[in-house]
Amino acid sequence: MSSESRPWHVESSIVSKRTSNPIRKVIDQLNVPPNPAKQLVSLSIGDPTLYGNLPPPETATSTLAAKSTDLKSNGYLHSCGSPVARDAVAKAYTNSTLTYTSDDVVLASGCSGAIEMAISVLGNEGDNILLPRPGFSLYQTICESKGIECRHYNLLPEKMWEADLADMQSKIDSKTKAIIINNPSNPCGSVFSLQHLREIAQLAAKNKVPIIADEIYAHMTFSGTSFHSLVEVGKEVPVLVTSGLAKRYMVPGWRLGWILIHDPIGAFAEVRKGLLALSTLILGANSVVQAATKSILENTPVSYMEHNMSILETNAKYCTARVQEIPELFAIQPLGAMYMMVGIKEGAIEAKLFDEVEFSRQLLIEQSVAVLPGSCFGLQHFFRLVVCAPIDKLQIAFDRIAEFCHTHSLIQSRDVVVNGLAAVKLTEE
Amino acid sequence: MSSESRPWHVESSIVSKRTSNPIRKVIDQLNVPPNPAKQLVSLSIGDPTLYGNLPPPETATSTLAAKSTDLKSNGYLHSCGSPVARDAVAKAYTNSTLTYTSDDVVLASGCSGAIEMAISVLGNEGDNILLPRPGFSLYQTICESKGIECRHYNLLPEKMWEADLADMQSKIDSKTKAIIINNPSNPCGSVFSLQHLREIAQLAAKNKVPIIADEIYAHMTFSGTSFHSLVEVGKEVPVLVTSGLAKRYMVPGWRLGWILIHDPIGAFAEVRKGLLALSTLILGANSVVQAATKSILENTPVSYMEHNMSILETNAKYCTARVQEIPELFAIQPLGAMYMMVGIKEGAIEAKLFDEVEFSRQLLIEQSVAVLPGSCFGLQHFFRLVVCAPIDKLQIAFDRIAEFCHTHSLIQSRDVVVNGLAAVKLTEE
Ligand SMILES: Cc1ncc(COP(=O)(O)O)c(C=O)c1O
Ligand SMILES: Cc1ncc(COP(=O)(O)O)c(C=O)c1O
Repeated sequence: MSSESRPWHVESSIVSKRTSNPIRKVIDQLNVPPNPAKQLVSLSIGDPTLYGNLPPPETATSTLAAKSTDLKSNGYLHSCGSPVARDAVAKAYTNSTLTYTSDDVVLASGCSGAIEMAISVLGNEGDNILLPRPGFSLYQTICESKGIECRHYNLLPEKMWEADLADMQSKIDSKTKAIIINNPSNPCGSVFSLQHLREIAQLAAKNKVPIIADEIYAHMTFSGTSFHSLVEVGKEVPVLVTSGLAKRYMVPGWRLGWILIHDPIGAFAEVRKGLLALSTLILGANSVVQAATKSILENTPVSYMEHNMSILETNAKYCTARVQEIPELFAIQPLGAMYMMVGIKEGAIEAKLFDEVEFSRQLLIEQSVAVLPGSCFGLQHFFRLVVCAPIDKLQIAFDRIAEFCHTHSLIQSRDVVVNGLAAVKLTEE
Repeated sequence: MSSESRPWHVESSIVSKRTSNPIRKVIDQLNVPPNPAKQLVSLSIGDPTLYGNLPPPETATSTLAAKSTDLKSNGYLHSCGSPVARDAVAKAYTNSTLTYTSDDVVLASGCSGAIEMAISVLGNEGDNILLPRPGFSLYQTICESKGIECRHYNLLPEKMWEADLADMQSKIDSKTKAIIINNPSNPCGSVFSLQHLREIAQLAAKNKVPIIADEIYAHMTFSGTSFHSLVEVGKEVPVLVTSGLAKRYMVPGWRLGWILIHDPIGAFAEVRKGLLALSTLILGANSVVQAATKSILENTPVSYMEHNMSILETNAKYCTARVQEIPELFAIQPLGAMYMMVGIKEGAIEAKLFDEVEFSRQLLIEQSVAVLPGSCFGLQHFFRLVVCAPIDKLQIAFDRIAEFCHTHSLIQSRDVVVNGLAAVKLTEE
């Protein structure tokens, strides 16, 4: 058949075919009509700008407005970012024991762009990378797009979502090119202790596997919990830290992320060059936002962060307390970020609702409350809440979740509260 | 040797190793000190914001400033872009015979991001893509990064830089996944006629090879020349048009580009899905710029573009006229965009300066004028000028270029002007 008579169908590339969001299939099942009698309350979308109660700081909005019209911030910049912006990022990580310069910083199109570059510079098709389970689904999307095998290590709910180090170790082989650590965690809201980070760094060093530390929720911790970056404990391990403005400054749409190259032992010479090369492909970060970055990082008052974190902490505590009143559910109290995972107790609720997708679907249909099934993050029998919504919304949501659980409860005497963590163990054993 | 005693060197990925800007090596040779007695005049950088004489329109800067503080434009958007911005782009291509909707538009991180996605969705490792020579080097960088073979088809200086269709045809085989057409052209400043575009579309249709039409300089043409998009003649050929705000609105740093999916015969169903999938990887375009895009596209007065184009046309004509006075050089008069290629006549200048890299190097060392050797775009014995600088700078630059050529001339009686195009042919035969 000549090419002229063939019907013309253009095939898409292998890469595009293997690029898919693993949560798509789950989300599609949630495409159901909410209860028309009840207004939708969404606790499913990880966008802190949604309700207006967590606005960006003046240092971000006013500076961006000023730079929009100064006629100096519209041109091409170095593919790794402007020296001033990179320097400001480097300074944010510099302290009495650790020094970074602008050469250690590569700006990118959001933290997503930073993660994409970090994975791209370390992994080849056929290699593998270790990802947390439960974890942010983009890691998997990017790895699969590149033909890199995803190997998941477990986070343990009974240990405040610490990584299962034995599991992590067991997944490493000669083709393991990186371990992704996400701290504070989406979806868990967990924050690793310095001690746990040390153990992770030791494991990585022992195996000579570099770390990608996704710290987009850096410093977003509740009272009594401190954030520690992996770089603080990584004296023997090279780390690519990925982060950005999105969550700390409540501007996810601005797409300003970065990689901090932490290379205490000089293992990253080639990787550094590789990142520079990869940065030339799309010149990710907007020039006006870059021009505002120094002001955002250096002039945002501490009170801004404190205010946001007090809102998030109040909300997280409220959610935890409400979950504790619902005998069919259990919560692992979050220590930071803006998420929490809620477990469904086996045997406490109609069997079909122990399936987290069915639980989320029915909750939407009956009560118009949107949550994300844990399977979006690789974990069954949990669902994730975003704790950003104002308390009055959270109250409505929890009144309905409570009613939903009561309606479908299997607990004979609903006064008996089953221990949540015990229930988890039960399921696993 | 146990992994503990091995020195730790992290290897970078194959992809990062094969990602390189082909012009890097050329540029490195230009890393020489300019003449300290003469202030540098740069005609080498394709950034129209450099001299301040071509500012962005009010519709861009004021709208961006307003959107920076409205607290409504900071959140996550659809990975392909906001419906409003996509719709505005679709409308810009819609006319009495062609209709597009927001579904036909994918926003990206600049036109670079759009090109990256277009190449990524069509080509696999081991396939080939046809690129113009001379041409914008990013095409090659992206293809090589993905392991896609670059096959260059010639643009013909003696035919106002039209594509050599016979050459193009001869480069196509079963592994050819796209032809990249760049019109108006960087580095040539050429603009294709409707007739030539028709011939290209016919060639593509006959071979059933889709087109990537890089039209980032769309509508940037001089008096007497009209811009035509490939979609106007592509009734039988699917086209991915890549474009953006960068050059028409003089905001290259804003990183707002797009793909327009032109699919008159329904060949792109799979490609459409692939682009959607690829867009989820980094969520390229900034939300505040997206919020401003409709106003930029719909409210920028025609007079803004007319004013810019009259500056660029005046400059281009001035440069052409000045080149015509220099017997060692010849120019192909540009019809649009903001570039021109200047040819060096063989035998008219010291032999070593017939080498365009050496010419550019010596011009910088002696005269402090920066131009880019044609080899940056794949073509020897030419250099590229950016015609954006104000006339007084262009005047200084050309006074010096003239002096430089005079100093190094081999022409016995400098009154005899050798015909430039004849010289080109001479070199090729
Ligand atoms: C853990 C984690 N990393 C990265 C990102 C992406 O950040 P950005 O919006 O800057 O691309 C997110 C966004 O939700 C996230 O939760
Ligand atoms: C032909 C061509 N295409 C694409 C681009 C890149 O455009 P953007 O800055 O929007 O990525 C350029 C920039 O110079 C160009 O000359």
